[in-house]
Amino acid sequence: MPTTHRSYSLTTTTELSFDDAVTRVRQELVQEGFGVLSEIDVQATLKAKLGVDGEPYLILGACNPALAHAALEAEPELGVLLPCNVVIYAQQGQTHIAAVDAEQMLSIVDNDQLGPTAAEVSRRLAAVVERAGHG
Amino acid sequence: MPTTHRSYSLTTTTELSFDDAVTRVRQELVQEGFGVLSEIDVQATLKAKLGVDGEPYLILGACNPALAHAALEAEPELGVLLPCNVVIYAQQGQTHIAAVDAEQMLSIVDNDQLGPTAAEVSRRLAAVVERAGHG
Repeated sequence: MPTTHRSYSLTTTTELSFDDAVTRVRQELVQEGFGVLSEIDVQATLKAKLGVDGEPYLILGACNPALAHAALEAEPELGVLLPCNVVIYAQQGQTHIAAVDAEQMLSIVDNDQLGPTAAEVSRRLAAVVERAGHG
Repeated sequence: MPTTHRSYSLTTTTELSFDDAVTRVRQELVQEGFGVLSEIDVQATLKAKLGVDGEPYLILGACNPALAHAALEAEPELGVLLPCNVVIYAQQGQTHIAAVDAEQMLSIVDNDQLGPTAAEVSRRLAAVVERAGHG
């Protein structure tokens, strides 16, 4: 299925299982130069903290060191918006992959120097979502 | 010093050392019902990946389970913008504490149901920054 562009994310629905989608996203993040700096198992967290039985939902915090460094040099406080997340989640039998739209997210930061970096991050994350979604 | 409201963050400069500020932020996050779901040592990461010698910079990914659950029920894709970060960083002899402005961040998401939750998260994170900054 095609990648959909929401106001704040790049999303696709895939035929892959949740686990296979996680594996493919990890592979494509490496391919595009991103390390995974944080991982949050939302399903496990909500179960542990609230007793809620939810569907699988994983947040991967992705960081391209060179691009993050450039962004932080231009805007020291930008860490409040980093890393850039890619999420994989199951919902009613379907597996979804979504990445934050870095350009939209950085639109709330009033700093023109971030434009080229944000565009580069968006381009790479769009490639991750697109390729991972195709299995 | 007073808390400053930027376009995307709530910030204060504190007399505390970097390490003491980290300790105080952790205490105040607990006080406001946030768990820390991710921690990124930006200084260590940039040193390891790029050989860059930067100043101390820590990103704490904070999550209030009940508020996160409410937000994800209203907007399943919202994980691309979670958790809410609080950063502590040293710069030229000063220690800074900053939290993402959840209301500003969620302004890029076109979903009116998120308003009350975003306002509550912002109120609590502002309290964390304010109190931690006072030592």
